[in-house]
Amino acid sequence: MLVMGDKFAVSEPERAAFLAFACEVAVEAGSRTLQWFRTAMHVENKLDGKKFDPVTAADRAAEAVVRERVQQRFPTHGVLGEEFGATAGCGLTWVIDPIDGTRAFMSGMVHWGLLLALFDGEEPIVGVMYQPFTQELWYGDGRSAFYRRGEVVQPLRTRQIQNLGDAVLGVTNPKLIPDEIHRRRYEDLEKSVRLARYGGDCYLYGVLAMGFLDIGVDGGLQPYDIQALIPIICGAGGLVTNWDGGSAAFGGNILASGCVAIHEAALRLLQA
Amino acid sequence: MLVMGDKFAVSEPERAAFLAFACEVAVEAGSRTLQWFRTAMHVENKLDGKKFDPVTAADRAAEAVVRERVQQRFPTHGVLGEEFGATAGCGLTWVIDPIDGTRAFMSGMVHWGLLLALFDGEEPIVGVMYQPFTQELWYGDGRSAFYRRGEVVQPLRTRQIQNLGDAVLGVTNPKLIPDEIHRRRYEDLEKSVRLARYGGDCYLYGVLAMGFLDIGVDGGLQPYDIQALIPIICGAGGLVTNWDGGSAAFGGNILASGCVAIHEAALRLLQA
Repeated sequence: MLVMGDKFAVSEPERAAFLAFACEVAVEAGSRTLQWFRTAMHVENKLDGKKFDPVTAADRAAEAVVRERVQQRFPTHGVLGEEFGATAGCGLTWVIDPIDGTRAFMSGMVHWGLLLALFDGEEPIVGVMYQPFTQELWYGDGRSAFYRRGEVVQPLRTRQIQNLGDAVLGVTNPKLIPDEIHRRRYEDLEKSVRLARYGGDCYLYGVLAMGFLDIGVDGGLQPYDIQALIPIICGAGGLVTNWDGGSAAFGGNILASGCVAIHEAALRLLQA
Repeated sequence: MLVMGDKFAVSEPERAAFLAFACEVAVEAGSRTLQWFRTAMHVENKLDGKKFDPVTAADRAAEAVVRERVQQRFPTHGVLGEEFGATAGCGLTWVIDPIDGTRAFMSGMVHWGLLLALFDGEEPIVGVMYQPFTQELWYGDGRSAFYRRGEVVQPLRTRQIQNLGDAVLGVTNPKLIPDEIHRRRYEDLEKSVRLARYGGDCYLYGVLAMGFLDIGVDGGLQPYDIQALIPIICGAGGLVTNWDGGSAAFGGNILASGCVAIHEAALRLLQA
């Protein structure tokens, strides 16, 4: 759906306005999903035996909010979403995953969130992640990144360490990494770090940007699963690439690290 | 540390008072841990190169609060905690895990919590779980159980389903299950369910009590990792045993389920 295009020229004031807009819309759209969070058991039997899927309902409601706000404010921009597909635009595209971590959402867990990025044809230039249940907002533009909860706003900074053996790694589920050879390479990486945490989806990349994880690794991601996280992690001082060291903007197998030393060491194992 | 003793006779008003006390103390002690949550990177270098462990500091501060409150209110009761060991009492013992999910805590994730149970020599008669960051409280006495967040209090009810193939399973990390033969049995169970979620620690048992997971399974638990969760899950209509179908109060390999049909089907696979 998302193809590389001409990089769209964006001025600094425009970029700041896009980021502010993204934050505002992410909070509004993300909050909409809460009415379906932890409700599954109460609604499933209401529709005469027909199963009601609260995740899809929440996904659609949140994505519709984003589409409506983009249409009002930036009618020439495109939109790419999981639920309603792609709407072409002038070369700038809003890329949305209304609920990243749908399994967590449907299990009543907390590690999920709404992801919203603005893609310029080459890379995401601003990105936002919002967790509506905890009311936490992460946002960045690749040069700086911030965390907001309530009235408190903090700059995000990744942890800078030297040795892979000191690293704490997060992975959503190693079994989701496509094909056996990549899963084996992942296992080599897991064996080389101090500690591996399972579960997390987008949330693990948020805490990586905060400096509490050193490596985030996942396989088989879609562009909308990762784009919003790139300007946040890079703005906090980290790196995000695919396992070949190339652009992460188009998804696939993804590696995010807090610093160059760890990223290079991890890439060596993932490419071995 | 914890040995089976004579069951201590407790009246209904006493039990209600114990549960109210447990809720109050869990919130106070759990809140104390927050000052160390997401602070690791800022404090590690302050002590002249000597590494400071924020998890241990938070653990100790929270456990000290519980010990002090028990000493004031129920001076004849015993206390068993992870940090300061066991203090013998009259036959009733407060069993505390100040931070269940220390790996999640140190990674800045949200799926951790404080666990507090009152053990009568045979089983935990009241249990409380508190997540200070999200301010969520789960509590129960084996006959009923409730969830409180802010002003909202809801009764907890597990999901009642019939087929293992429809079940959603939560596991903290299958690699933590001791010995290969048990890990293989776990894998058989995972293959039989609709969906498996990784990560979670105590939090996954909380959402099981809410009806959003059908199975919680973990290996190698300590008594203080599971005791508080038993009166909550049983009070919500679920079951908790070890993999042999015996008491879960002494830890080990643990299975929790939302209903009898699922528990029996899962036990068959774990014992195969």
